[in-house]
Parts: sequence; structure tokens; C-alpha cells
Amino acid sequence: MPNAPDPARRSERSRKAILDATLALLHESGYRDLTVEAIAARAGVGKQTIYRWWSGRGAVVLDALAEQVSSAGPPVLPDSGDLEADLRAVVRAIVAELADPRLSATTRALTIETLSSETLAEQVRDRLLRPQLDAIKTRLRSARQAGHLRKEADLDQAVELLIGPMYHRWMLRTGPLTDEYADGIVDLAMAALRPRAA
Amino acid sequence: MPNAPDPARRSERSRKAILDATLALLHESGYRDLTVEAIAARAGVGKQTIYRWWSGRGAVVLDALAEQVSSAGPPVLPDSGDLEADLRAVVRAIVAELADPRLSATTRALTIETLSSETLAEQVRDRLLRPQLDAIKTRLRSARQAGHLRKEADLDQAVELLIGPMYHRWMLRTGPLTDEYADGIVDLAMAALRPRAA
Repeated sequence: MPNAPDPARRSERSRKAILDATLALLHESGYRDLTVEAIAARAGVGKQTIYRWWSGRGAVVLDALAEQVSSAGPPVLPDSGDLEADLRAVVRAIVAELADPRLSATTRALTIETLSSETLAEQVRDRLLRPQLDAIKTRLRSARQAGHLRKEADLDQAVELLIGPMYHRWMLRTGPLTDEYADGIVDLAMAALRPRAA
Repeated sequence: MPNAPDPARRSERSRKAILDATLALLHESGYRDLTVEAIAARAGVGKQTIYRWWSGRGAVVLDALAEQVSSAGPPVLPDSGDLEADLRAVVRAIVAELADPRLSATTRALTIETLSSETLAEQVRDRLLRPQLDAIKTRLRSARQAGHLRKEADLDQAVELLIGPMYHRWMLRTGPLTDEYADGIVDLAMAALRPRAA
């Protein structure tokens, strides 16, 4: 007797095909051209299958990116012992991502979702951003233990000091997003956070 | 012979009535409940008059707020000679605005417009935000001249250091927006910007 079809397994297979198709299309043509139709066609499912599980393309993209983040495991910042060098590497990488028109279109779309819906805001924050912010926070905590950071520094505020200015510049397009700019951010943050001279 | 009706003057009267109605409705019930219908009714014009001049409620709100800003004249930060005290006052005021649900709904809406359209982004930046950012920059410049700021400080980056972290926290709802938080931002920024000990 052949196995009975397993609807749970079939669902899981469709779900995975949809998320994979979403990432592939994002990579190939970016968020602007991404439609639920295109995802359905690529995944070999009907549009209604997507709408059964998600409210729209923003929600699918969020799930696809979140699974990518979680399957990569929690991000860890290298700890070379030189806090300034480690922060330069991560801030340069984030600035480069924001300066890339294709990656930045996805971030822009997710930021709009974040501002439009409190539920999506929580998900973007907790599933996509929190792991990145936590990785920076962990590195700052170890620097504080090593005496390279003011003892009384608030680590959440320290992370915002690194991240906030570049998102502001990116959002308002008020200036260039370059390595030099990234290094300037780290320089200012280090001046703010370094133990004060006795 | 009575004066002939003056269509230019009538247009200007309608435009002003529409912008005034927009500000009044924003003030009374906030952005969420604001519709083009409600603005038209309050201003005593037809909906089509609004759509002839604006693409939608986002564009009307932007014009209404921009005229309010420009009729108030360019904002000036007080210069008490104590940079830290002056910055505390302005950062506390911005944090309080972001913490206010009604004001914050308008800022949220304008941020969405900023992210959705490059044209509106430029207008929001240049007509609404630039005057505020420039006022802070002017105060920082005079502090630099007085020797209260590092000589080599980049003033645009200094402004972003003050403003970026709070918008990041507000957008992602990652923490409380209080006076204490505002003072912490100023404390960190001052540590970053103060002339370094010789």
C-alpha cells in the first residue's frame, strides 16, 4: 500500500519553495519588481496559497529574510581585542549595505512596513534587527569588561550611537555613505565611550 | 462698476483654507483620521480642488507643516553660553515630541512618505527637517568657535550623533523616550565632541 499523501509535509514543502523563491527574486531583481504573482510562479504554487499564509509581499519578505538570518545562526562580531578595529569592520559593512541600491530597497521596504504596522515592526525588530544589535552589544560588553569602555556606559545607548546616525543619513539622504563616513562614526562613538581620563 | 472676480486671489484663498483646515484637523484628531474628504469639508471646497493641487493627503500635510515652519521664521537654538544645557533643552523637546502619540503619528506618516518617494523625501528634508538641523548646527558652530567643541569636529556628523539615535529608538520602539534618555544622549554626544584633554 503506497503512503497516503501527507498534507503537513506538502504544506511545509510549499512554504519553503515560496520563501526560497522570494530570496532568489530579491537577489535577482530587487524589491521594487517583486510581486506576489512572481513569487507564486517561481515557487510553482497558486497566488492564493501565498495569501492564505501571508498578508502581502512585505510579510513574505520578512519571513524569508528572518529564516535566512536564523539559519545562519546568531551573528557574532569578531573580537580581535581591538574594539575600534572590530567596530570599523561592522560599521563599514552596514554602511556599504545601505549604500547598495538593491539591498537598500529591501531595507527601505521593511522600514515602511515597520512604520505602518506595529505587529510587523515587532517582527522586523526582533527577528531581523535584534540579532545584529545583540552581536554589537555583546562585543561592547566584552570591551567594557576589558576596561576599554566606560564602566557606566549604557550598552543599548552605545549601540544606538553607532547605528542611529547612519540610518538617519540613509533615510534622509543627507550625505555620502562611504568607508570614510563609517570610520568617522566609530571615531565619534569611541570618543564618547572610551573611559574618561582620570 | 463692481470689481471683476479675481481667480488668482480666489485660488490663493482656497489654498490657504485647505492648509489651515489640514492643520486644525491634525491638531484635533491626528493623522490617522485625516482624510481628503474631511479636509475638503472643513475648508469648504470640493475634493477635486484638493486633488488638482496635491497628489494626496501626505502632500497636503507636508505643505501645511512646511508653511507653518516657514511662517514661524527660521528656528534658533538659545545660546546661553552653556552648550550642554542648550542641547539638553532641544533634545528633550524632540524626544517629547516623538513620545507624544498624536505628534508622532504625523512624523510616522511623513517618514513613510520620505521612504516611498524621492521627491517627497527631498521636500520633507529641505522644508521640514533642514531648518531644525541647521539650528542645531549653528549652535554647534558657535560652540566650536568658543572652544567648547573639538576644532576638527564635523558639524553634520555631530548633528546626526544627537538626532540619529533617538529616531532609531522611536522607529523601532526599542526603549523608553524620556527626559532621562534625552540627557543620556547629550551626555554621550558631549563626551564625543568636547575638546580632548591635552
